[in-house]
Amino acid sequence: MADAPLSEFDLIARFFTGRDRGPGIVLGVGDDCTLLSPRRGQELAVSVDTMVCGTHFFPDQPAAAIGHKALAAAVSDLAAMGAEPLGALLALTLPKADEAWLAAFAQGMGALADRLRVPLIGGDTTRGPLAISVTVIGHLPAGAALRRSGAEPGNLVVVSGSLGGAFAGLQAEQQRRETGGEPPEAEDPLRERFFRPEPRIALGKALRGRTRTAIDISDGLLADLGHVCDASDCGATLQADSIPRDPLLAEWPAGSALAAALSGGDDYELLFAWPARQRGELRPLASALQLPLTVIGEFTREPGVRVLDEAGQPIALAGQGFDHFRAD
Amino acid sequence: MADAPLSEFDLIARFFTGRDRGPGIVLGVGDDCTLLSPRRGQELAVSVDTMVCGTHFFPDQPAAAIGHKALAAAVSDLAAMGAEPLGALLALTLPKADEAWLAAFAQGMGALADRLRVPLIGGDTTRGPLAISVTVIGHLPAGAALRRSGAEPGNLVVVSGSLGGAFAGLQAEQQRRETGGEPPEAEDPLRERFFRPEPRIALGKALRGRTRTAIDISDGLLADLGHVCDASDCGATLQADSIPRDPLLAEWPAGSALAAALSGGDDYELLFAWPARQRGELRPLASALQLPLTVIGEFTREPGVRVLDEAGQPIALAGQGFDHFRAD
Repeated sequence: MADAPLSEFDLIARFFTGRDRGPGIVLGVGDDCTLLSPRRGQELAVSVDTMVCGTHFFPDQPAAAIGHKALAAAVSDLAAMGAEPLGALLALTLPKADEAWLAAFAQGMGALADRLRVPLIGGDTTRGPLAISVTVIGHLPAGAALRRSGAEPGNLVVVSGSLGGAFAGLQAEQQRRETGGEPPEAEDPLRERFFRPEPRIALGKALRGRTRTAIDISDGLLADLGHVCDASDCGATLQADSIPRDPLLAEWPAGSALAAALSGGDDYELLFAWPARQRGELRPLASALQLPLTVIGEFTREPGVRVLDEAGQPIALAGQGFDHFRAD
Repeated sequence: MADAPLSEFDLIARFFTGRDRGPGIVLGVGDDCTLLSPRRGQELAVSVDTMVCGTHFFPDQPAAAIGHKALAAAVSDLAAMGAEPLGALLALTLPKADEAWLAAFAQGMGALADRLRVPLIGGDTTRGPLAISVTVIGHLPAGAALRRSGAEPGNLVVVSGSLGGAFAGLQAEQQRRETGGEPPEAEDPLRERFFRPEPRIALGKALRGRTRTAIDISDGLLADLGHVCDASDCGATLQADSIPRDPLLAEWPAGSALAAALSGGDDYELLFAWPARQRGELRPLASALQLPLTVIGEFTREPGVRVLDEAGQPIALAGQGFDHFRAD
């Protein structure tokens, strides 16, 4: 019932070596706990995210992409609070020792960790069905966190980047598997949107002090906007034609493309509330961040989320999940 | 590829409700991250521990015991550093919605969390093979952490409680299963030592400032003492007859009982270094904590771990794992 001695330990140790240092880290990997020394006046933001083989990724998906996405999805929760990463802990459950898989997984996660400056400060390796649980710890000035609450009627609804690309990538990948097609090149942009989301840490940080309200779009625009409306005790009205659709959806039927952008999920863009009279500040902010920021509607006193077409008529929403894509 | 909407969410939410508050918790469950406000002058200790069905527990093990042990094993790492719990995050992967199982699991984890005052400050529920990953965050005065390093030749090797009981419980449970015996009563002491270890938080806290070196015995006495010796650049000599054996081993053959105490694992007692000239302070400390503290040997300049019999002769150690139990 105990863990077999895993040769993975060595590889994981190698993977963490030198990656467990950073500001505020008193003691890295190798003891019963990691020790952190928070800066005075800072609050800590903490979150955990699990990805399970077959539920969140394909068993034969490139291991580097799995490593990337497991860390990206967790770090995205820090971005949504306006926190900067202090470190991440990796709980990795593996069916067997597979050095090539582990090396690629570690490379994918390590490359993102290095680029985003997320020290890998702890972990646990166990034997079992493939799953990855990543805990992230971030910090931010006390009182500055972006929450789901705080949006006010009249505030603009703004999203970063474009939406629906991850869903387009997933659909393409599923179709390829059903038809037995060859895997595309490693850097295929269609798959990359699903395989390698980019957490918006710089945007989250920039939003601190400018708004109180943000969320990351992991469940889909409608679902996550719904969370904000619930927490903020308000509703929202969106303009369908203002919702930024991923270029990958360009050749999709209009209805399907809209549905993908509204409900596709896994995009890890940020949605935030923005005071209407500061609308003019969005463009320079987008410019500084080199990231599109698009006003897609506004928060309302009336509860619920509505999406209006070009004529101002409400579009019937079949649901906030995936099912309605099939009927398109 | 996304999570199906789980009815478990409701149950988990109920489980967390009211348990996500405590000193230093600014924002509990329900946003992208939990927010913590560390006290000035405190360091944070962080660790993650995963338990996988079939590897760490039996599929039909009582769910309450699984919930207890998942939290206990993680919190034990805080105890080993001398840290007090600030909170725990639960990443729960479940094959299906089973309300009765979840209620019992939540009850078992929740009862321990309440008793040890560990707020449950976050989590993630996903669909997949049963596994539980618990991240714990603790705090302690800066510089006061107990590490694996720092033991010096001449220091006494001390352990809390008794050893081998968890292994005895595991053996009994395995035998029962092989012979098709009826499950014992819920509170059977033999199983409880394996099912419900007790993290030694009060001891870890009391050791701060009195020693620099501690570890929890999760892998087994020899293995974990080996970790301390490696980190402290020293060795250790133990007296076999001084090692406190769990009363559950009373009727075992002497050799098997010693092997269980030396290598059984899963006891979650603490092992620590203690200055020889403060030996007299151990008894009042044990008395205050109502927990046996036993000197079992001393750290040495000579590397490696040796176990001596009553005649002072070294006992041949077949290994530090489980295999040699079978040849007894």
